[in-house]
Amino acid sequence: MEFTIPEKMKALVLFGPNDVRLVEKPVPKPGPGEVLVRVAACGICGTDVKIITKGMPKMPPYGEFTFGHEWAGTVVAVGETVDEFKVGDRVAIEAHKGCGRCENCIDGKYTACLNYGRLDKGHRAAGMTVDGGFAEYAVHHVNSVYKIPDNISFNEATYVTTAGCALYAIDKSGGYIAGDTIVVIGPGPIGLSVVQCAKALGAEKIILVGTREDRLNKGRLLGATYTINVREEPAPLDKILALTNGKGAERVFECAGTSDSFELAIKSAKKGGVVVLVSFYKEPVTANLDYVVLNQISLLTVRGEGNRNCQRALSLMAQGKIDAKPIMTHAFPLEEFHTALDYFVNRKDGAMKVVVNP
Amino acid sequence: MEFTIPEKMKALVLFGPNDVRLVEKPVPKPGPGEVLVRVAACGICGTDVKIITKGMPKMPPYGEFTFGHEWAGTVVAVGETVDEFKVGDRVAIEAHKGCGRCENCIDGKYTACLNYGRLDKGHRAAGMTVDGGFAEYAVHHVNSVYKIPDNISFNEATYVTTAGCALYAIDKSGGYIAGDTIVVIGPGPIGLSVVQCAKALGAEKIILVGTREDRLNKGRLLGATYTINVREEPAPLDKILALTNGKGAERVFECAGTSDSFELAIKSAKKGGVVVLVSFYKEPVTANLDYVVLNQISLLTVRGEGNRNCQRALSLMAQGKIDAKPIMTHAFPLEEFHTALDYFVNRKDGAMKVVVNP
Amino acid sequence: MEFTIPEKMKALVLFGPNDVRLVEKPVPKPGPGEVLVRVAACGICGTDVKIITKGMPKMPPYGEFTFGHEWAGTVVAVGETVDEFKVGDRVAIEAHKGCGRCENCIDGKYTACLNYGRLDKGHRAAGMTVDGGFAEYAVHHVNSVYKIPDNISFNEATYVTTAGCALYAIDKSGGYIAGDTIVVIGPGPIGLSVVQCAKALGAEKIILVGTREDRLNKGRLLGATYTINVREEPAPLDKILALTNGKGAERVFECAGTSDSFELAIKSAKKGGVVVLVSFYKEPVTANLDYVVLNQISLLTVRGEGNRNCQRALSLMAQGKIDAKPIMTHAFPLEEFHTALDYFVNRKDGAMKVVVNP
Amino acid sequence: MEFTIPEKMKALVLFGPNDVRLVEKPVPKPGPGEVLVRVAACGICGTDVKIITKGMPKMPPYGEFTFGHEWAGTVVAVGETVDEFKVGDRVAIEAHKGCGRCENCIDGKYTACLNYGRLDKGHRAAGMTVDGGFAEYAVHHVNSVYKIPDNISFNEATYVTTAGCALYAIDKSGGYIAGDTIVVIGPGPIGLSVVQCAKALGAEKIILVGTREDRLNKGRLLGATYTINVREEPAPLDKILALTNGKGAERVFECAGTSDSFELAIKSAKKGGVVVLVSFYKEPVTANLDYVVLNQISLLTVRGEGNRNCQRALSLMAQGKIDAKPIMTHAFPLEEFHTALDYFVNRKDGAMKVVVNP
Repeated sequence: MEFTIPEKMKALVLFGPNDVRLVEKPVPKPGPGEVLVRVAACGICGTDVKIITKGMPKMPPYGEFTFGHEWAGTVVAVGETVDEFKVGDRVAIEAHKGCGRCENCIDGKYTACLNYGRLDKGHRAAGMTVDGGFAEYAVHHVNSVYKIPDNISFNEATYVTTAGCALYAIDKSGGYIAGDTIVVIGPGPIGLSVVQCAKALGAEKIILVGTREDRLNKGRLLGATYTINVREEPAPLDKILALTNGKGAERVFECAGTSDSFELAIKSAKKGGVVVLVSFYKEPVTANLDYVVLNQISLLTVRGEGNRNCQRALSLMAQGKIDAKPIMTHAFPLEEFHTALDYFVNRKDGAMKVVVNP
Repeated sequence: MEFTIPEKMKALVLFGPNDVRLVEKPVPKPGPGEVLVRVAACGICGTDVKIITKGMPKMPPYGEFTFGHEWAGTVVAVGETVDEFKVGDRVAIEAHKGCGRCENCIDGKYTACLNYGRLDKGHRAAGMTVDGGFAEYAVHHVNSVYKIPDNISFNEATYVTTAGCALYAIDKSGGYIAGDTIVVIGPGPIGLSVVQCAKALGAEKIILVGTREDRLNKGRLLGATYTINVREEPAPLDKILALTNGKGAERVFECAGTSDSFELAIKSAKKGGVVVLVSFYKEPVTANLDYVVLNQISLLTVRGEGNRNCQRALSLMAQGKIDAKPIMTHAFPLEEFHTALDYFVNRKDGAMKVVVNP
Repeated sequence: MEFTIPEKMKALVLFGPNDVRLVEKPVPKPGPGEVLVRVAACGICGTDVKIITKGMPKMPPYGEFTFGHEWAGTVVAVGETVDEFKVGDRVAIEAHKGCGRCENCIDGKYTACLNYGRLDKGHRAAGMTVDGGFAEYAVHHVNSVYKIPDNISFNEATYVTTAGCALYAIDKSGGYIAGDTIVVIGPGPIGLSVVQCAKALGAEKIILVGTREDRLNKGRLLGATYTINVREEPAPLDKILALTNGKGAERVFECAGTSDSFELAIKSAKKGGVVVLVSFYKEPVTANLDYVVLNQISLLTVRGEGNRNCQRALSLMAQGKIDAKPIMTHAFPLEEFHTALDYFVNRKDGAMKVVVNP
Repeated sequence: MEFTIPEKMKALVLFGPNDVRLVEKPVPKPGPGEVLVRVAACGICGTDVKIITKGMPKMPPYGEFTFGHEWAGTVVAVGETVDEFKVGDRVAIEAHKGCGRCENCIDGKYTACLNYGRLDKGHRAAGMTVDGGFAEYAVHHVNSVYKIPDNISFNEATYVTTAGCALYAIDKSGGYIAGDTIVVIGPGPIGLSVVQCAKALGAEKIILVGTREDRLNKGRLLGATYTINVREEPAPLDKILALTNGKGAERVFECAGTSDSFELAIKSAKKGGVVVLVSFYKEPVTANLDYVVLNQISLLTVRGEGNRNCQRALSLMAQGKIDAKPIMTHAFPLEEFHTALDYFVNRKDGAMKVVVNP
């Protein structure tokens, strides 16, 4: 198979805070170990909103930078030494590629690469520290590119980032979940993905806590066995304890990012249990660390995907064990990016994740 | 709820090699921390065959010993301090209870209890070192008793031992399986259980290797994505490598117990991968350990259930993710134990596991 | 060897808040699995101060309760089934014995026993939920009793609790330390013990942070390679980063228990690193959890000893790799308990840990 | 600091089986991420003997290939992007650098790189798949280069490979060793290094088993608490069991590589314990796998260094906790390589490891 690759392409470029323009720019060339992808779909993430509005450390300069880190498409050219993929392969990417030479990368902890943002040393965070996927073409290193199974569409495939993050949280919390009881706080895309991934892995009770009934409804569809609306339930912790024989849950996934959600998370955990923080916190948290110590709770953290969980996500999707469609709710052509962003930011029409098709 | 407990009960007793008799003996009384169970079902295991034919170290004396370690029933009385269960609860047991005072038990490795066979110190292996379940009544310690979910019958519940062993093998091999490729050698009850448990946990490819077409057929029904009949396939290893892009499988479960199966197991594993030995070996194996070292393979072992995987097994059964029925193929009343044993030993009528109902 | 055991003994009994009296009470009798110990030495711990001043959940009633959980002595009688120890053995205890029947104990996490305080179910926390060691005699279960090597005195042996806690913190943080760089915040008995244990395990750089010069001095004697007095050093974090090539430490041990120390702890950790909380917190902490998530730091907790680290502590002491004497600074006879307590609470004469000899 | 780098250098080159010649060849140039080192010392390893006599898969062609993978020297030039090292730094290398793009490397298991021998993809095994250190100059990638502490000589620094392998074996066996009892079978350089590393980490009992009294003597000097000469001791297993209270050792390191040593290794392990195979096996082993399964022993394997243990080795050496000198017994100039090899192969003058100085 061969593709004609043009010299120029359409791409979104960030010219300054809130100044995203659709421009023409040169199609990138794949270096050694890299593939060039004709991007078919790129999802919008909360991090993109931050990038658009405030920028981000280590990002390329305004006027040049194409963001977008949840993308999938077709390999149209391969760089030197690449035999892992061939032209025509349908692929999805994982945003982070470690440098491969710092202590953390050598240890396999590539999401904590100590050379973050150093493309010259081999690190790349697609759409964050180098150009990304809101463009017709993009390059990425084979280290973090995955083949898409035949029964998954490109739009669905962009779900691997979100699902990969949820699976990484489960992985880090101990992995094996068959029969465990979990609590998920915050039914956003990540929280709901934890719900359906935990269901796919055999969690017995999945208690989902949130504030919006439509999201909790979606959670029940995706596998939550109980939902608690903290706006309506005066004593959510009591309910969680009642559902867990007074013991609390083996693992709690904190996907809400507030002082209240953190407090509920630690109190919901079983003595000796695990709380995974899968959310950023806008403000410092008033943390009852004495409770954490007294109850010997481990607080683990997840940022991004990690441990090749994107590959696992694709496999579970191909097996029909998790489903991208309830999460990736809307799609727009690249030309309508601003509409897509509006739907995403303002949750229009119940939008959760919004995909853009270059 | 209350039950009238008789003084005497019917029970199988082993009077000598191959001398099993159905006799009357006193109903046992639950000690502190123990429950008395009206046994509804008890599965026959390969270990029972050994016990019947040859005896076993640390077993109670001939003329007294009631074997049977895969049993389920209804709690009819509880001993002192028991509040974990109440009369009327439907329960299944895990055979092994650690002493709780040796180094291994303190560390959580209760199946490797250093006080094996020392009932006085707290260890018990039901139906092996103390009386078991081929009787109308039996006692067990709450430490290793699990509630049966409502949608599981007693006959199905006896599957927890087999499924718990398979899950323990998966657990020990690293747990979390989503998207991994595994090879299972030996489609006996354990091997087939590994197949369906791995399927339940999201394995992508499950390659089952065996010698009997009916068992391989059953494997495909339970989730094997490929089966290899080594009697018909001249180069099974080549096939496994072809199915795994030449890399071999992340994990291999050796459930056959021969020199040939061991050799195939290590060669089927990915470099740096894991082989779990879930079988006993009748004879010493000619082992290519140089290959194991050069390829940095870990050889792990599983004997019995461990790590509370019986509880996980019950949960997966209740969720409909694994199914006891294709494994627990036959059931007979206690009076017909010899027929049941005949079916089990001689695989009559395609028998896999045979349950007895006291 | 045989000992004459009297009927009555001298013991401290807590009659109410701050009302400790030296009284006569019956010598306890060892039950099954228990040993009776002629107590030679019992250390005072911060928890004892809490018990004396405020009491503690699950403790025996005022007027009966003998506290003291860091004790050592000679076995003078053994209960039924005990063959692990014999009369005449010199032993030290670990305070916590799990119930052996809850999920956490079965999993080996006995310090997080779900039956805390339930002696009837097998749990005991010596000197906290049952009688302890400020008495001439005390009983304990063999599960948590360790033989004292010949070259360790009883007074030194009471150090196992403190050293065992420090080792447990190291154990939980990943164990193996050869060549790692660690930061210890808070040079109290636990912090200083982390210092000398890490030294014994081959830590390369050990940075100790505190506020009192005499304690930091002691830290240097015990192996700290750098000390930082936060009262004198205006930018302790900058110094830590300078000492770690800007990367931070692999592991940080937070032994101070304040908002400031927590903040310094998380900022001192390497990206992807571990912070172990080995302190209680008197007040809620204002926690920069966003920093923790962004830097993928794990926050682990330790309460008490755990994982049989007391045994490891005794071994390191016997090998001369760690030393009790700089920590266990003072000793008094039982009759002078109030003086001993005064020395301990008010750090008189540079007192760190104070031992009482019944 | 600056160095004048000549165009040509002296180097050993392998022209065919047993045909090693000292020739002139061009000094290599450091590529991106690489350093050029003026080699000061390079150790001879058993693998070198294999390479010289039989060759090795993936090695460079005869007539070009310079072997030698245990080397240290001074950085004289750095390639593009290198800021980890500067000219003048004294460094030692770890032979293996993973490709950084296969699944195993991404997971941190770089010694099991799936692109072994593919320099184009980033893998390199210095002195095995690319040129190594029996030359005046050599290049290596910063990923696997370590700074040498000031108090370690170049000759000593070549010990990091051997010590790194021993530490990796300990690491893989569970790491943390304080107070554990270990058995080491085979007092070669690796076995003796396991002895002194385990001692450095606080092993309580270290039982060393071998056949040659001088090696066992050396073992005692390095920390073995007991030695067993199987040529003199008729029942070595009984002795090991006697020394371990009948329980066996927590961990056994099999460094001898025979059927007998394997059998002794598994029998010496505690129930539920670990045996690490740190040796190659010239012939298939008759393995009692039934014993292994019944006793739930894990058989782990180590090939090469791994997990950055070379860095840990350097740190322990700098701290004076392990000592290279008793292992690196002899040194010769490059011109006398054949003499050096003779000493190494024939253990002349008690030679253990022999270093060559280019």
